[in-house]
Amino acid sequence: MKPKIDYTLYLVTDRNLMFSPTIEDLVEQAIKGGCTLIQLREKDSSSLEFYEMALRVREVTNQLDIPLIINDRVDIAIAVNADGVHIGQNDLPIDAVRNIIGYDKIIGVSASNLSEALNAQRGGADYLGIGAMFATDTKSDANLTSFDELQKIREAISLPLVVIGGINRTTAPLFHGSGVDGLAVVSAIAAREDVCGAARELKQLFLKGR
Amino acid sequence: MKPKIDYTLYLVTDRNLMFSPTIEDLVEQAIKGGCTLIQLREKDSSSLEFYEMALRVREVTNQLDIPLIINDRVDIAIAVNADGVHIGQNDLPIDAVRNIIGYDKIIGVSASNLSEALNAQRGGADYLGIGAMFATDTKSDANLTSFDELQKIREAISLPLVVIGGINRTTAPLFHGSGVDGLAVVSAIAAREDVCGAARELKQLFLKGR
Repeated sequence: MKPKIDYTLYLVTDRNLMFSPTIEDLVEQAIKGGCTLIQLREKDSSSLEFYEMALRVREVTNQLDIPLIINDRVDIAIAVNADGVHIGQNDLPIDAVRNIIGYDKIIGVSASNLSEALNAQRGGADYLGIGAMFATDTKSDANLTSFDELQKIREAISLPLVVIGGINRTTAPLFHGSGVDGLAVVSAIAAREDVCGAARELKQLFLKGR
Repeated sequence: MKPKIDYTLYLVTDRNLMFSPTIEDLVEQAIKGGCTLIQLREKDSSSLEFYEMALRVREVTNQLDIPLIINDRVDIAIAVNADGVHIGQNDLPIDAVRNIIGYDKIIGVSASNLSEALNAQRGGADYLGIGAMFATDTKSDANLTSFDELQKIREAISLPLVVIGGINRTTAPLFHGSGVDGLAVVSAIAAREDVCGAARELKQLFLKGR
């Protein structure tokens, strides 16, 4: 059975900009600060490094009872028994992913506009990551999603939605009343010295608007 | 059931140095010249591009009844119903791969020395790629395998062995009497204008020594 997921505060890791000494330390502190879901994203390492990192993070998330999603690599998601996989528009198609990973796992899909969001919903996605909402250093080539587009997506899509891309303490309050289910955050948690405090603050800022 | 594989002439693709207009054209010409096995190796493209390329190559190999192996990406191997996967020492561990891909598929493992070869055999590999035998442009950081080491590996390992790394018309005859089952070739086929002729010549050079 698919795990029930709380999308409120979704940490997406980035080793290149993290302040923490290890990725497992980052994840542990983020969860202690209130992150409800973790995505391990790793673009530059070998498959073996990604796998070993995922095993270490899996231990932390298991201990703290938080679901773990693996970015892009369906094989690594299966190998570490992650709760699911997150795919972008340049990753494997959703039907191919579902065939490999089965129906007990979560598939999240990145969508930057209504058309991508509808396709992902039709394809059987479990949640969508909408954005990039704002320009960021981590995704410089990202197409920005306007608040108008976000509203159209929210009206058309019944799946859980998280917003991603430039979500931080300044931008988080802008999503009050938007109907999104959570914030997906990279640098505003990972690049901070006080990961735990950063997560706590973002969560409070988001929940205040509910 | 696992496919029976003829390892005599194994093309490992490299889009960056190929002369052919498309990867499927390269593969078709290589098979027409006598290649008995194809490995699709793709390090720089997105998962979607790799997947779509693999689907196109799969069509050609199916039509010509030649097995297709996918480098590294177990998920893509499954998604395109390839005959197996080839993993290096920095890819997923062989037991993790076997758990995902099952026992009907081929797992090939790169080994540069006897210890890696023995580990791979113990782990359940179906064949080994031994090398790099010679320095190449495509794998500049590769550890070279001596002919002495190759002989030790051949004596200790019962699996099919192919040699890789700098295999071309000059070096191919050096493997006469070495007991290897085939030649794995990148640029000496892929970078040639006459792919079909290059494959034919290499196969003749190798088979002459049998």
